[in-house]
Amino acid sequence: MARLNGHYQQLRTEYIFPIIDKKLEELRKQYPDSDIINLGVGDIALPLAPSIIQAICNALQEMGNEGKIHGYGPCEGYLFLREAIAKNEYAAHGIDPEEIFISDGINTDVANIQEIFSLNSWIGVPDPTYPVYRDSNIMAGRAKKIVPLPCAAETGFLPVPPSQHCDLIYLCSPNNPTGVAMNKKQLAAWITYARQEKAVIIYDNAYAAFIRSPDVPYSIYEIEGAKEVAIEMRSFSKNAGFTGLRCSYTVLPREIQGRIGRKKTPLHSLWIRRQNTKYNGVAYPIQRGAEAVYSEEGKRETKAQVDSYLSQGRKLREGLTQLGQVHFGGIDSPYIWWKTPNGKSSWEFFDLLLEKCHMLLIPGRGFGPRGEGYMRLSTFTTNEKVAAALQRVEKIL
Amino acid sequence: MARLNGHYQQLRTEYIFPIIDKKLEELRKQYPDSDIINLGVGDIALPLAPSIIQAICNALQEMGNEGKIHGYGPCEGYLFLREAIAKNEYAAHGIDPEEIFISDGINTDVANIQEIFSLNSWIGVPDPTYPVYRDSNIMAGRAKKIVPLPCAAETGFLPVPPSQHCDLIYLCSPNNPTGVAMNKKQLAAWITYARQEKAVIIYDNAYAAFIRSPDVPYSIYEIEGAKEVAIEMRSFSKNAGFTGLRCSYTVLPREIQGRIGRKKTPLHSLWIRRQNTKYNGVAYPIQRGAEAVYSEEGKRETKAQVDSYLSQGRKLREGLTQLGQVHFGGIDSPYIWWKTPNGKSSWEFFDLLLEKCHMLLIPGRGFGPRGEGYMRLSTFTTNEKVAAALQRVEKIL
Repeated sequence: MARLNGHYQQLRTEYIFPIIDKKLEELRKQYPDSDIINLGVGDIALPLAPSIIQAICNALQEMGNEGKIHGYGPCEGYLFLREAIAKNEYAAHGIDPEEIFISDGINTDVANIQEIFSLNSWIGVPDPTYPVYRDSNIMAGRAKKIVPLPCAAETGFLPVPPSQHCDLIYLCSPNNPTGVAMNKKQLAAWITYARQEKAVIIYDNAYAAFIRSPDVPYSIYEIEGAKEVAIEMRSFSKNAGFTGLRCSYTVLPREIQGRIGRKKTPLHSLWIRRQNTKYNGVAYPIQRGAEAVYSEEGKRETKAQVDSYLSQGRKLREGLTQLGQVHFGGIDSPYIWWKTPNGKSSWEFFDLLLEKCHMLLIPGRGFGPRGEGYMRLSTFTTNEKVAAALQRVEKIL
Repeated sequence: MARLNGHYQQLRTEYIFPIIDKKLEELRKQYPDSDIINLGVGDIALPLAPSIIQAICNALQEMGNEGKIHGYGPCEGYLFLREAIAKNEYAAHGIDPEEIFISDGINTDVANIQEIFSLNSWIGVPDPTYPVYRDSNIMAGRAKKIVPLPCAAETGFLPVPPSQHCDLIYLCSPNNPTGVAMNKKQLAAWITYARQEKAVIIYDNAYAAFIRSPDVPYSIYEIEGAKEVAIEMRSFSKNAGFTGLRCSYTVLPREIQGRIGRKKTPLHSLWIRRQNTKYNGVAYPIQRGAEAVYSEEGKRETKAQVDSYLSQGRKLREGLTQLGQVHFGGIDSPYIWWKTPNGKSSWEFFDLLLEKCHMLLIPGRGFGPRGEGYMRLSTFTTNEKVAAALQRVEKIL
């Protein structure tokens, strides 16, 4: 019988989102008419912007035209999109379009990037964390090589550079799940650490569009020296409602080097090889849709969406404060990190909210041991739901 | 400096398709007005069918509607598509929709599937072969565990079960690159081998839609016992022109078991775990487009496309025969395996065709040592191009 990958046995638990989906499904069966408020998974609550729909449909009409067939595209993405990103997002940092790799989601790239590193690498992973950083490394056989980076109250719900050596570090800012964003000084400390340790930072910057505080860097490349040590990942999911369309990008500057034996090797060439072999790129019309995010109309429409989510966040934070609740984050982020009342465990409070309030939040424990005692509350929601949510919560406090 | 994955150094060559793309680009620069005939990469030559465009645009309009937002979908694919595939493709074989996993391409799944197997597995890979089978295993660290399965003239350009043990075997039928399809008896021999050796077969069936010979199985599950040992992968790329849209599926029956230590484990559960962690699924509108392939209109339109490609294949084969050329395959397949004239090496003949005929074919050597002396000719083309191609070839023979 074929031997399987035994590392899967070292995964601590089931991946949390499917568990939550099941609990939600059960509730829906029990109360088919209930108006469940989902403030759980960080998924869009507003419809796709008209300019994006139009751009994708135009691209599809093109594909139906004999003279304009679009079959296999470059696995790294079409140059029109890589150029639009370079120009609109990275003009200040001198990122070359060929350092930008288009993909179907940060999830995919953040799970795959570890493949180009040695199995002997030491991996710094925040706790609590988006589970994919940890789980993709456990699956690859690095369960014993993970260095937890505490990300709890003592450090302001952000990871700080450890005393140990790491080769690869996953950072997420604005942070998922704690909703706190790193300021320039905090991020600079990580760049200093990475340069000292000759480590590489994977910077998951999925929530960049939510940054409003002037001292929070919009890109890691605002920090001097970052281009030699940091890979930045961003997505169209959260700034333009692409969760159901799947398009993201990874910025991998040519300057970042690692070694194979004693030979210096740019990570850029390994990643190209990886993607050329194992990936065929994002659908052409979806890439045209992503390009439209940078049109005048697209910018206006998608900014209005993010502003709306930020405004729901403000109302949720104010409402929780009025209810005497302790919470963090949510300022430069679509996530609020809510301390469970009365010392309840996060799964206990999850069940209570689900059963009594028909509200879904993510238990902090699902993101790691140091997430215990907190809930992640997503602000991807609407006016009406915020008001209803706060009313329902009031009743059980 | 971070240690990188040293296995990449064991990859024999650059991935061939980017090399060919570069040579093509150079020719285009040199002769910007030349009408280059590309019979290389197996990419579509006909526009996307109207019913598919319509279905995708409808889905996008839905996504723009407040009441019908579609954000993150299930990573395994929407049930509507899994059910459509089960009903239309696998009704005779009792495949459950939950045994069907939607993905963005066979390329992706065929490269990722090795992750759920032990690094100590012996891997059977045809030679010549679609390079991803071999390269994904080399990248993972199995360079010394690869068992080449000769696929040359002696075995009718198909792999036959080896005398050695393999744990995992990659088969492609109708075969890429040789264009020959396995008949029932040939495929049954592989199922017998896999059952004896307790091995798992990855059956890349990307070209199923081209099968016309009655003794060639349309699915591996037509062979008794296959559901316990075979994973079948199929795509909408070649039957419905989705190369630029990216949608495929992997059938992983619950019966297939492997072991972790001494513990029997269904591969199905490991693959779910892998996909849940490392993948977020295919865009909703693209899945609606794939569903439309099974509508009455979709079936009619896409069958007409495949029939057209098969008819170009017939003309190309007849033309080559009239020119005294030796060739194989192309009957149940969009690929013809053309023996290079006058004993030329396949890269020599590639350069000659490109320079003198402005025609692009894939050199067989690029698919492995036993591909030397052959060219892969793709029949994804049009009437006019077939006629022109045969005229150009005649001049250099």
